[in-house]
Amino acid sequence: MGEVKLLASWSSPFSRRVEMALKIKGIDYEYIEQDLSNKSPLLLQSNPVHKKVPVLIHNGKPIAESLVILEYIDETWETNPIFPKDPYEKAMARFWAKFIDEQCNHAVWQITCSKDKEKEKAVEESIGHLKTLENELKDKKFFGGETIGVVDIVANIIGFWLEALQEALRIELLTRERFPILSKWIDEYVSCNIVKENLPPRDKLVAAFRAILNAPA
Amino acid sequence: MGEVKLLASWSSPFSRRVEMALKIKGIDYEYIEQDLSNKSPLLLQSNPVHKKVPVLIHNGKPIAESLVILEYIDETWETNPIFPKDPYEKAMARFWAKFIDEQCNHAVWQITCSKDKEKEKAVEESIGHLKTLENELKDKKFFGGETIGVVDIVANIIGFWLEALQEALRIELLTRERFPILSKWIDEYVSCNIVKENLPPRDKLVAAFRAILNAPA
Repeated sequence: MGEVKLLASWSSPFSRRVEMALKIKGIDYEYIEQDLSNKSPLLLQSNPVHKKVPVLIHNGKPIAESLVILEYIDETWETNPIFPKDPYEKAMARFWAKFIDEQCNHAVWQITCSKDKEKEKAVEESIGHLKTLENELKDKKFFGGETIGVVDIVANIIGFWLEALQEALRIELLTRERFPILSKWIDEYVSCNIVKENLPPRDKLVAAFRAILNAPA
Repeated sequence: MGEVKLLASWSSPFSRRVEMALKIKGIDYEYIEQDLSNKSPLLLQSNPVHKKVPVLIHNGKPIAESLVILEYIDETWETNPIFPKDPYEKAMARFWAKFIDEQCNHAVWQITCSKDKEKEKAVEESIGHLKTLENELKDKKFFGGETIGVVDIVANIIGFWLEALQEALRIELLTRERFPILSKWIDEYVSCNIVKENLPPRDKLVAAFRAILNAPA
């Protein structure tokens, strides 16, 4: 198995993805919390390009970028696969993971840093992307089918962080009326032990969002 | 091998990546040029989420997003691998492919659609990202080592499209003085038969950029 270290931040959904994958696989690792306001020499040296968490260090070799790390974990430790085996199904999982990161996450983050018309546009775009995800989920229990797979791991942003962000900013984006299927998925998702154990405290996260975004409590 | 179709556009570096991988692997395919100003029902139905090229259709099943397609091709047809076998090397290749798409490509594109201070910032960012790539390449012949690998395929944007864009916009970003290592890589890259055969006519590409960006000839 070798020595596994994880440079992470408690509030980062990207860090939590990697932790979830390590836990699903039953891999022992050393968790090293990073202070992102005062980055450690270890973080700067392990991820000199982006200087961000998460970084997985396996036998002294660092890997950055959560999606890249998830692929590495699944290829290195074969028990409890998180990606589908079939190349086409695997391609679809990669497509949706990329969609969540590049479209959903981007559009939602735009809401937090824009105003007026631009903000309206970002809200509209976010709703459109969430509709696309709702259609993809259809009658599946999880994106991965009957059990949690890589797309569910990546969708933690939607399954937990988005609700905390909505509460912090007092906006309504992902509501039960608008997204009954995604809402049902969220209920199932946060009820799974492996997910539950791996989420930050909700109140602390809402407070952190308020502090970052300068939103009134 | 099955039936392979590629929905592509002659000027798209993303389409050309897929073609290059198919050619490296020696896979027969039907090339179907797409008119992006009047999207075909086949394109809209094959990539309903992004409505973009490239789309690879293998035995009737469509896959979108060039990086996702490259992974699929390498997993489905094993001859002449384009990704490294070793999981760590593979993770590094994925990291750099992602970096080229999300950082370099994004920053360069920002130059084309911004003005004044924002444009200056985008130029500075682009140069910074290219410096990072220059450092990564160091004394290697190709990003893939002695032969072309997936990062070289993805870096076609820098190896060919960027120079055409510079000519169209009359800007100087990637110069020999500023980037001796990347410039040497470009020379090697465009001299490879597999690359040469798979590039659009330079003049036609420059003219297309000028038309899209409304730049004077």
